[in-house]
Amino acid sequence: MNMVDIILKKKAGLPLNKEEIHAFAEGAARGTVPDYQLAALLMAICFQGMNEEETTTLTMEMMHSGSVVDLSGIGEICVDKHSTGGVGDTTTLVLVPLVAACGVKVAKLSGRGLGHTGGTLDKLESIPGCSVDMDEAQFIRQVRDVGCAVIGQTRELCPADKALYALRDVTGTVGSIPLIASSIVSKKLASGAGAIVLDVKTGSGALMHTVEDSVRLARTMVAIGKRAGKPIYAVVTGMEQPLGTHVGNALEVKEAVDLLAGRARGDLLTVSLGLGARMLMAAGKAMTLEEGEAMLEEALSSGRGLAKLKEMITAQGGDARICDDVSLLPHASRRMPVTADRDGWIAGMDTTAIGYCAQDLGAGRKTKADRIDPAVGLVMQVRLGDYVHKGDALAVLHINKPDGASEVAARVAAAIRISEEKPEIPPLFYAGIGPSDV
Amino acid sequence: MNMVDIILKKKAGLPLNKEEIHAFAEGAARGTVPDYQLAALLMAICFQGMNEEETTTLTMEMMHSGSVVDLSGIGEICVDKHSTGGVGDTTTLVLVPLVAACGVKVAKLSGRGLGHTGGTLDKLESIPGCSVDMDEAQFIRQVRDVGCAVIGQTRELCPADKALYALRDVTGTVGSIPLIASSIVSKKLASGAGAIVLDVKTGSGALMHTVEDSVRLARTMVAIGKRAGKPIYAVVTGMEQPLGTHVGNALEVKEAVDLLAGRARGDLLTVSLGLGARMLMAAGKAMTLEEGEAMLEEALSSGRGLAKLKEMITAQGGDARICDDVSLLPHASRRMPVTADRDGWIAGMDTTAIGYCAQDLGAGRKTKADRIDPAVGLVMQVRLGDYVHKGDALAVLHINKPDGASEVAARVAAAIRISEEKPEIPPLFYAGIGPSDV
Repeated sequence: MNMVDIILKKKAGLPLNKEEIHAFAEGAARGTVPDYQLAALLMAICFQGMNEEETTTLTMEMMHSGSVVDLSGIGEICVDKHSTGGVGDTTTLVLVPLVAACGVKVAKLSGRGLGHTGGTLDKLESIPGCSVDMDEAQFIRQVRDVGCAVIGQTRELCPADKALYALRDVTGTVGSIPLIASSIVSKKLASGAGAIVLDVKTGSGALMHTVEDSVRLARTMVAIGKRAGKPIYAVVTGMEQPLGTHVGNALEVKEAVDLLAGRARGDLLTVSLGLGARMLMAAGKAMTLEEGEAMLEEALSSGRGLAKLKEMITAQGGDARICDDVSLLPHASRRMPVTADRDGWIAGMDTTAIGYCAQDLGAGRKTKADRIDPAVGLVMQVRLGDYVHKGDALAVLHINKPDGASEVAARVAAAIRISEEKPEIPPLFYAGIGPSDV
Repeated sequence: MNMVDIILKKKAGLPLNKEEIHAFAEGAARGTVPDYQLAALLMAICFQGMNEEETTTLTMEMMHSGSVVDLSGIGEICVDKHSTGGVGDTTTLVLVPLVAACGVKVAKLSGRGLGHTGGTLDKLESIPGCSVDMDEAQFIRQVRDVGCAVIGQTRELCPADKALYALRDVTGTVGSIPLIASSIVSKKLASGAGAIVLDVKTGSGALMHTVEDSVRLARTMVAIGKRAGKPIYAVVTGMEQPLGTHVGNALEVKEAVDLLAGRARGDLLTVSLGLGARMLMAAGKAMTLEEGEAMLEEALSSGRGLAKLKEMITAQGGDARICDDVSLLPHASRRMPVTADRDGWIAGMDTTAIGYCAQDLGAGRKTKADRIDPAVGLVMQVRLGDYVHKGDALAVLHINKPDGASEVAARVAAAIRISEEKPEIPPLFYAGIGPSDV
């Protein structure tokens, strides 16, 4: 199999066959195809795309390039959920206990925060004592007994994806729908999921900046699932502002607990219910979205969701008392308000910039080696469409190191656009796509 | 200068500025930019192209990435000529002595054969004693005293081009007009040429397979010259069949001598005169093509061209008696005719295949380490549009090793299409482009 011929074929816009895709995925996983040839092929794919069959083949080749987690010991279909990454986006901590409380097993392998987006593992670790490291036998046992578990990867999955992902990052080839779709779905399939719900973010804080591209990515992933024989549901949701009000690790845990305790509602809960209802559908537990949402609302109002979160935290070694008393979570030593410099409507937010502000306060990592501070972050005081007066708080920074905080405050203020005109509020849900739609 | 930003800029179709092009050319020359980033950028350039300004900047950056030959010691403008590579294409050995006989200095750095095309250095070395290795002081002295010299590169020129060229070959990014144009022109400028004539081949035996692409390549190179302040003339000529009748090293020297001695004419002479006349124009010696061609015809018919070739061969240590007695050139031990298997018109030739047949007989190298046999090759007996009867000779192989010769003969026969319909004869000259045309 001559790699130059494969590159030239894709460059000419022709579809690659299974052997050709195997050669390049296998070569990436084993390191037997030089990076410069992979880079040239990735760039050609950015321009020429891949059809559904190619994208599915690439997904399966990447999935099988390493080991595949075997969750059959759980004895039931396990459902997983993945988000393309947002700011103030704690849906996992809200929906995992709710869905598990409805009797569907959730076996979730999560990631850490990167760039401007937070990571579920970092959030869970902000709970005193809570561990996200366990072996597969423990993981399977917890899912079987408790109904849910959220941990880090137990072993290297999808080495082909790992190699290609690292290369894409340094060759300007991140933004290709077939490459993104196959990367996401291959990892979810390799982690043993029997059904998957995907949250594709769109807007200023998202990987995909246009709704059209987000919908295309969502459709592509649902189509891969259909061809691969695994139910995948996808929603396209807005990321024109932080989804929840809290941005930061312990702060986001607090918000999740507040929602599960019924003390608050808002966009974060709405999206969590929309995703959770699709998880119930994917697992065959609910027939319609309405039925699924009603089941979740019942789990919420009855307190069974919060009880399930406690169970899960306890099973993972954490202090579940934080569910009754959020002041037991780590908290920052100082608060600094960010105020409006004029009267007007909140007309736009640079969500990515807000995410980076939280990172700079210590809530995220700039390099893999950085240690995060679980307590810091910021709490938004306004949402798009709110009217503010000069001097009103736009956000409150939660800080532990005063150095540079004023500069971050100024950047948060700059990321929030105040207008004299009342803005249109962008939708929260843009599209929902299921196996019957592709 | 962040390489990923440069890649993304080109990927988005935006022109790169001088600093960005410098960063990538310098990075390629010094090895400080990883190959995978260069490969991704090269592929993005294949899709998005480069405008004239970018292409000129890349040319100048590659030219200055290494040393530049200083020919000012010659005291006059030196003209150089380059061909994109053909089969049976000995124009250099015909036009260099003719142009020098007209009083224009020709200081030519040539290359070796590669792939299916022959190389002037290999042809010259088939002349007993003739050397193509000399230092720059000797080279300048010979050009000043004799009027012409054809030698190999004296030192590494254009290391940026060398690195990018090697990478293009293995990443499917050869076929990009700005990359080809900047590669060719940077090397010619670095070798000290004051004016350049370029022969862009088109057709089955050429780098560019369509006339449109060939003309675009020619225009691009002429435009680079204009922006760089060096006169460049380009012609687009046909390579639908071997240009001369002889393919192989000593065989092509023989054909050049035959032409210069006035014993033969044909397409090879026609193209040599067309290129040579433009060399006279580029050097300011002739005002029009007609004037230039008349000067060359006079040098030919008076025998001054052949005399100049003798002078040059003698100056380079070779046996100039081959100009009076071509039987002193190396010759092969056996001849094997390739015959027509039916009556009909010669309607098409796979020129690339014919070039590879000569290579397989020993006239070219498969790897850089291979030694060539100066005597072997083939002599075409037909041209497009000829009528042949079954059993007529199509070509005669000149061979030294009988093994595999029959197989090569069969491939030569297969490369020559005989049709019942009289074919259209493709033109020899498709386009001529000078500085006033761009």
